[in-house]
Amino acid sequence: MVDKIEKNQICALLDEKKGWHVDNNGLYIEKVWEFANFQMAFSFMMRVAFLSENMNHHPEWSNMYNRVFIRLTTHESNGVSLKDINLAQQIDGILGD
Amino acid sequence: MVDKIEKNQICALLDEKKGWHVDNNGLYIEKVWEFANFQMAFSFMMRVAFLSENMNHHPEWSNMYNRVFIRLTTHESNGVSLKDINLAQQIDGILGD
Amino acid sequence: MVDKIEKNQICALLDEKKGWHVDNNGLYIEKVWEFANFQMAFSFMMRVAFLSENMNHHPEWSNMYNRVFIRLTTHESNGVSLKDINLAQQIDGILGD
Amino acid sequence: MVDKIEKNQICALLDEKKGWHVDNNGLYIEKVWEFANFQMAFSFMMRVAFLSENMNHHPEWSNMYNRVFIRLTTHESNGVSLKDINLAQQIDGILGD
Repeated sequence: MVDKIEKNQICALLDEKKGWHVDNNGLYIEKVWEFANFQMAFSFMMRVAFLSENMNHHPEWSNMYNRVFIRLTTHESNGVSLKDINLAQQIDGILGD
Repeated sequence: MVDKIEKNQICALLDEKKGWHVDNNGLYIEKVWEFANFQMAFSFMMRVAFLSENMNHHPEWSNMYNRVFIRLTTHESNGVSLKDINLAQQIDGILGD
Repeated sequence: MVDKIEKNQICALLDEKKGWHVDNNGLYIEKVWEFANFQMAFSFMMRVAFLSENMNHHPEWSNMYNRVFIRLTTHESNGVSLKDINLAQQIDGILGD
Repeated sequence: MVDKIEKNQICALLDEKKGWHVDNNGLYIEKVWEFANFQMAFSFMMRVAFLSENMNHHPEWSNMYNRVFIRLTTHESNGVSLKDINLAQQIDGILGD
């Protein structure tokens, strides 16, 4: 079991400048990326896929050509946990954000 | 410019048994896949990515662990075109559907 | 430290019918796959990449269009170890071999 | 049929500073990359895979953990052609070389 984090804590943990947003109820965090083309977008997704598998924690995500949308939540915690914050930081690390 | 296909034609072209659905307004076709795990789901997505790049026609799609949702539409046609039917058939071909 | 396995043991552990070969000195095991095209070959490689990362044990491998060659060895053991046998079996599992 | 390029021409076309080498007989060009880890190496390979499929011209290549080795040749020309030079330049473009 991984503890849920309250919304004000999520905001404190996330560096807001990096583009992650918390929904109003603090149930998930999400971010959008825009790349030059599909190949770059999908390559980024593969990097995220490796990170997700290594953590055994997977995003809800979508793609439309050069855009990638990632939403993170921890189902067993019914909200956002440190697992999500950790994965978010690793995802940002891919692009050196 | 690629011609839009009317809804009754879409249904005729798609083999409905394969799980593709047309929305009420005939604006897009969509299908859901469920795999044994994330690695298999993402591997399928990579196959779709190759097909999309080869056709220069890309899906709107999402993934959640072992599930993949694909929606196809042709923006320039403001609806479903033969490009979508063609890509749908190639995607089905990946799994031998 | 992972123990090196002697050649006769490697042969006993590997099901030879599946196409894995042990070199004369028992330093590595290898296998070749041939697919219908490059997309299928590279998709298989991505599955292997996931397995390798999960085990933190990586192949020496090469690809030429539809062909994939994989060589497994455990550098720290200076030969073949159970890690290689394990990865080999997981790789065979991808294609249901 | 794509014309073979002579060795002195290959050297002129390739910017040698970028690390591409021509073999003594001018039959192929090759380059080695070293990344921080396997995930980055394989992600680079996926970008190369997309480029190769788009050009329908594929490398002979190998990977060992964080290292990627790529060899380009045009079989139908029995040597290096402009297709190889073109793909080499696109591959360099991935990393902004």
